[in-house]
Amino acid sequence: MKTIRLGIIGIGNMGCAHAGFLQKGKCPKLTLAAIADHDPQRLAWAKETYGVPCFSSAEELMDSGLVDACIIAVPHYDHTKYAIAAMEKGIHVMLEKPAGVYTKQVRLMNEAADRCPGVVFGMMFNQRTNCLYRKLRQLVRSGEYGQLRRVNWLITNWYRTQAYYDSGSWRATWSGEGGGVLMNQAPHQLDLLQWICGMPVKVHAKMRFGAWHDIEVEDDVSAWLEFPNGATGVFVTSTGDVRGTNRLEIQLDKAKLTVENGKLWAEEYAMTDREFNAVNTEIYGKMEFTRREVETDGDNPQHVGVLNAWAEAILGRGQLVAHGSEGINGLMLANAMYLSAFLGKEVELPVDEELYYAELQKRVAASKRKDTAPVFVNDRGNYDFGSTKN
Amino acid sequence: MKTIRLGIIGIGNMGCAHAGFLQKGKCPKLTLAAIADHDPQRLAWAKETYGVPCFSSAEELMDSGLVDACIIAVPHYDHTKYAIAAMEKGIHVMLEKPAGVYTKQVRLMNEAADRCPGVVFGMMFNQRTNCLYRKLRQLVRSGEYGQLRRVNWLITNWYRTQAYYDSGSWRATWSGEGGGVLMNQAPHQLDLLQWICGMPVKVHAKMRFGAWHDIEVEDDVSAWLEFPNGATGVFVTSTGDVRGTNRLEIQLDKAKLTVENGKLWAEEYAMTDREFNAVNTEIYGKMEFTRREVETDGDNPQHVGVLNAWAEAILGRGQLVAHGSEGINGLMLANAMYLSAFLGKEVELPVDEELYYAELQKRVAASKRKDTAPVFVNDRGNYDFGSTKN
Repeated sequence: MKTIRLGIIGIGNMGCAHAGFLQKGKCPKLTLAAIADHDPQRLAWAKETYGVPCFSSAEELMDSGLVDACIIAVPHYDHTKYAIAAMEKGIHVMLEKPAGVYTKQVRLMNEAADRCPGVVFGMMFNQRTNCLYRKLRQLVRSGEYGQLRRVNWLITNWYRTQAYYDSGSWRATWSGEGGGVLMNQAPHQLDLLQWICGMPVKVHAKMRFGAWHDIEVEDDVSAWLEFPNGATGVFVTSTGDVRGTNRLEIQLDKAKLTVENGKLWAEEYAMTDREFNAVNTEIYGKMEFTRREVETDGDNPQHVGVLNAWAEAILGRGQLVAHGSEGINGLMLANAMYLSAFLGKEVELPVDEELYYAELQKRVAASKRKDTAPVFVNDRGNYDFGSTKN
Repeated sequence: MKTIRLGIIGIGNMGCAHAGFLQKGKCPKLTLAAIADHDPQRLAWAKETYGVPCFSSAEELMDSGLVDACIIAVPHYDHTKYAIAAMEKGIHVMLEKPAGVYTKQVRLMNEAADRCPGVVFGMMFNQRTNCLYRKLRQLVRSGEYGQLRRVNWLITNWYRTQAYYDSGSWRATWSGEGGGVLMNQAPHQLDLLQWICGMPVKVHAKMRFGAWHDIEVEDDVSAWLEFPNGATGVFVTSTGDVRGTNRLEIQLDKAKLTVENGKLWAEEYAMTDREFNAVNTEIYGKMEFTRREVETDGDNPQHVGVLNAWAEAILGRGQLVAHGSEGINGLMLANAMYLSAFLGKEVELPVDEELYYAELQKRVAASKRKDTAPVFVNDRGNYDFGSTKN
């Protein structure tokens, strides 16, 4: 196999973005071989635009013998269904985020992945390719600065218009998307948070549903986290702030690390607080520190980087950016936040999956789909990724 | 009355700081006339150092006929007792923060203030004199940017050493101080928060007690706030971060205002989000905005500014920086945070004062005073105010 024959399942905004990367030659090991979409009009448009075989169902595409691998870019509820089907047919999978809507569903998918070790299963966590977060993770995980003490992420630069929410009947509904900012925009940061800091053991979240838009799901979240060692975190996200903020600060025993405005800063302490207090006798004693901008390798290939790493892994030559089975972690965080907000209390992780599923179903049952025709902004892979980067 | 004869009750670190301002001629309308302290050694030192009449009790100082006004700078539990006594004797009062330990106590003090309208009663909220916060308040309160949507204050630059906590038997004990960072360091920001944004209606706080120090009270707080219009807030403070952060961000309908690194930034939107959504049809539509550093008058006189404004008010010529009766607001916020953390649930404001008093008493009853001699860092008004400024 010199190049991998790629199928795209779901040719909406993200599907088009991926097709665009291939058309522009950014993924030399991947060849666009087929497309599936259940919308006949959309499919006809895709056939004319991309000139590849087009199928009205994912199953037909998978059974066509035309593809070695597929990108799944359909609405969230169907992520796991198609991923499982593809893996069981021996087709490599790249899954758009989130991994699914509830962890009970994603656990089944991960079990399928375990049964299909020959399939290369990746998650589209493109923000893991950002040099700032890669470097930050390395600094945190290396242990050179000791343990985590505090993490604070103000990630409110996910502004979305009402027109955005009105562009699909499934958008921002419990039945169509299974949530709001935590399911559609913030999955990137929820994944990075656990990727860098590890999983919390407790979550307490406050949510506002339709605070800034005419939607039934949350567009404003303030969450508190507790980690196994007692360290705490605060995670605030929203799609309602016209000019939001993306500022991540991590306090460790021997350093404060901050990612803000496209830079990573380190304030490094001469010793730990505990070591300092063991020798210091001055009441207003201050520890020595240095402040520096941390150099990174500067690479930030985003989606293209995830796709190319996946292709190399399929060809047996490299590592995935994010294995598909890791998608459950950020989703677990989201589910825990929802459950906490629904019940009005702190919840422990791992989340009670059956309870969350039951609570979600109540909201799905009362969910109102909008009577709206789908609108696609992205016909040629020109989705604006501006706000997805730091 | 050309100058005001001032008594200082409690000649500890803050009492000395105030005496130092007078000695350096920074408060021309105030003359140091007497000092009271119950510690005989400290009093002997004060007598020699300042050369004014010294009394072993606040009552003696108040009854001496030597003072027109007094600064109360004793441990927190005694704030209200001495303030009430002074007011009832017709002596003007400047009270160090916090106004008291629990609002039930402070309410009695405010009632006394109402009964003594001739007395000028001020609170030492020196951070209200900071040009950045004054300007910020003016912008928020003017209404020109619409309503509050979100406030986020990461105020973790209150680092304190174990030596600091060991410098007085009353420090960081439930019985001696009635709390930790919320009672001693963060009262400034709790006051500014309500002064700028108004009072929340709900509070939910998570606290860590003795997380970073060998103390029984909290040195780490993460609090969530809800305001009457539904706006939310997050307030995080700690004395354990070697290099903390002081970053205040306020989202309004038509602007984001940020105070950080000694500057006030405004990002001003062309219209409100609601107005934009009424006309925008682009899915990824973006509103126009401008970003500018907001000019201020540059003045930041801190404690001296509060003292001089109080002196002018006593002389009938000006306004207080903070009226004494306003001290209850920030304290109410602190009490609500404690009650929420104690009970493990969200609490509504105004806080249930009797319930909070009862919960506090449980902790006071179990409190352990440290067996330690007091240590004073500040003999000449040279307290380091570095970390109290933005």
